[in-house]
Amino acid sequence: MTVTVLAGGVGAARFLSGLVRAVPPADVTAVVNTGDDTVLHGLAISPDLDTITYTLAGAIDPERGWGLQGETWRAMEALDRYTAVRPDGSSAAPAWFNLGDRDLATHFYRTARLAEGATLTAVTAEIARAWGLGLSIVPMTDDRFRTIVRLAESGHEVPFQDYFVRLRHDVAVSGLRFDHSATPTDEVRRAIADADVVVVAPSNPLVSIGPIRDLPGVDDALAARRSSVVAVSPIVGGAALKGPADRMLTELGMDASVVGVARLYAPIADVLVIDPADAHLVDAVVAEGMRCVVEPSVMTTPERAESLAVACLAAAR
Amino acid sequence: MTVTVLAGGVGAARFLSGLVRAVPPADVTAVVNTGDDTVLHGLAISPDLDTITYTLAGAIDPERGWGLQGETWRAMEALDRYTAVRPDGSSAAPAWFNLGDRDLATHFYRTARLAEGATLTAVTAEIARAWGLGLSIVPMTDDRFRTIVRLAESGHEVPFQDYFVRLRHDVAVSGLRFDHSATPTDEVRRAIADADVVVVAPSNPLVSIGPIRDLPGVDDALAARRSSVVAVSPIVGGAALKGPADRMLTELGMDASVVGVARLYAPIADVLVIDPADAHLVDAVVAEGMRCVVEPSVMTTPERAESLAVACLAAAR
Repeated sequence: MTVTVLAGGVGAARFLSGLVRAVPPADVTAVVNTGDDTVLHGLAISPDLDTITYTLAGAIDPERGWGLQGETWRAMEALDRYTAVRPDGSSAAPAWFNLGDRDLATHFYRTARLAEGATLTAVTAEIARAWGLGLSIVPMTDDRFRTIVRLAESGHEVPFQDYFVRLRHDVAVSGLRFDHSATPTDEVRRAIADADVVVVAPSNPLVSIGPIRDLPGVDDALAARRSSVVAVSPIVGGAALKGPADRMLTELGMDASVVGVARLYAPIADVLVIDPADAHLVDAVVAEGMRCVVEPSVMTTPERAESLAVACLAAAR
Repeated sequence: MTVTVLAGGVGAARFLSGLVRAVPPADVTAVVNTGDDTVLHGLAISPDLDTITYTLAGAIDPERGWGLQGETWRAMEALDRYTAVRPDGSSAAPAWFNLGDRDLATHFYRTARLAEGATLTAVTAEIARAWGLGLSIVPMTDDRFRTIVRLAESGHEVPFQDYFVRLRHDVAVSGLRFDHSATPTDEVRRAIADADVVVVAPSNPLVSIGPIRDLPGVDDALAARRSSVVAVSPIVGGAALKGPADRMLTELGMDASVVGVARLYAPIADVLVIDPADAHLVDAVVAEGMRCVVEPSVMTTPERAESLAVACLAAAR
């Protein structure tokens, strides 16, 4: 059975770790959000792609949920000397976006290959091969795509990483915008059209899955095969397992519950998988036009992630 | 007394260390070769600028002569994983150019500031300030300038760092070319025109001083004030103290001796300072049209570098 997973970062990475225990990795394609991508110090940074690659390789730092285990921070520490002298108005060499010393090699390779003219799709496959991974990891697009967040207090728009990392997503947002004229790659189109099952991973529906859905043709392609699309709610008990999804939903006038998630996904997915903590909301999910499957979806162990993946595949049949 | 020093890397850095013991650092300007500059992994690398900055800051690794003391190499070590998977024809993420983890912060800052539109001159001054330096360090130009070396065996042209680092300058060269349409900055023009003394540091006359002299107007400006220009021979006893200057001179049909150096510098400098090891060549230097001062010029200690600097200043009077 071939499976395509629409993926953000940490939650999707954990789900994929479980999925590749249940089906051969060669049958799995992760279509990954690149709306969070940025350029720092001249380096091409793809946070979600790297989180998935490092997690699947068993190399992710389990406590942070991003970056490599056993990492050191010598380059970042040395940056302090320079942030102290930069002129007013400059944001050069920001120290708020932590890049580990070993992690830098990934950005070096990606940046250098892109400069040679390679597509992000090609480079991502090379990086996955370097880590010995068997699944396909594909960026949602080879084109520039930037998620922009409007901050409620100032009304200013900032790039996603400014909100997410610099401000630690600790401020209210009043808007969300995708700045791009990107198209999905052929790999993405095929992965969505041809897989036996498509799973929408338990990622932030607005800033992780939203960018993928904003690419022309993606929502239509999902709707066209809706009966074999299964979404996993990233909201459990009214809260996001990780990150600001719950607050963002509320701040943007949506419902930070599995019902709110169902409202977002009903046009493209037939099934919503929710945690037993939300079992009392099954009828409300169904009322939004989705089938509802209750399954533990807090992936505290690989075994739990595998059970969740198996439940998703079963639900799609 | 204000002093401008035309500078390459290691030899010039040692000379400058001695000079700032003899005159107030605020009266010293180093005009630094950028023909060796390159872009690696997307990062703007300026080897000579950094060697001078780190040396003057007392932070240089004394054994290597480049990079920082107490450096670690975690990022470079992690790059091996990727060089193993890059496709044929790609030179992405080269591991032959070693970038230390702490050194990376300098490249991050420079790259980010240049991307903001700052000039290399401005960024270099900020970096010098970050290291607490009192002298002025100015790149010879803010424009792109690339030193290109033709390899004798293959006849191929390669960028300077390919020759110098990747091939460890261990192959014969058959040609040298400067690829640029650069102009010297106003800071460089003023430093050369206005200083009480100009010293040509004991750097490679072909690939360190040669690029500075190749900028339009520089040789004429030096010739116009020739009587107060003093050059220090980087060749001692027929050999370069460091690097391939001796072999390059021979391979390109010049004389790898203080006489060969005098022939190159006679149009722009009144005095050549040579080491006692070459005292028997004083007459031959004079025959090339330069005054000749004999002074120990192997800078094994800061005191020796200071004595050499003092001798240069005295010779110019």
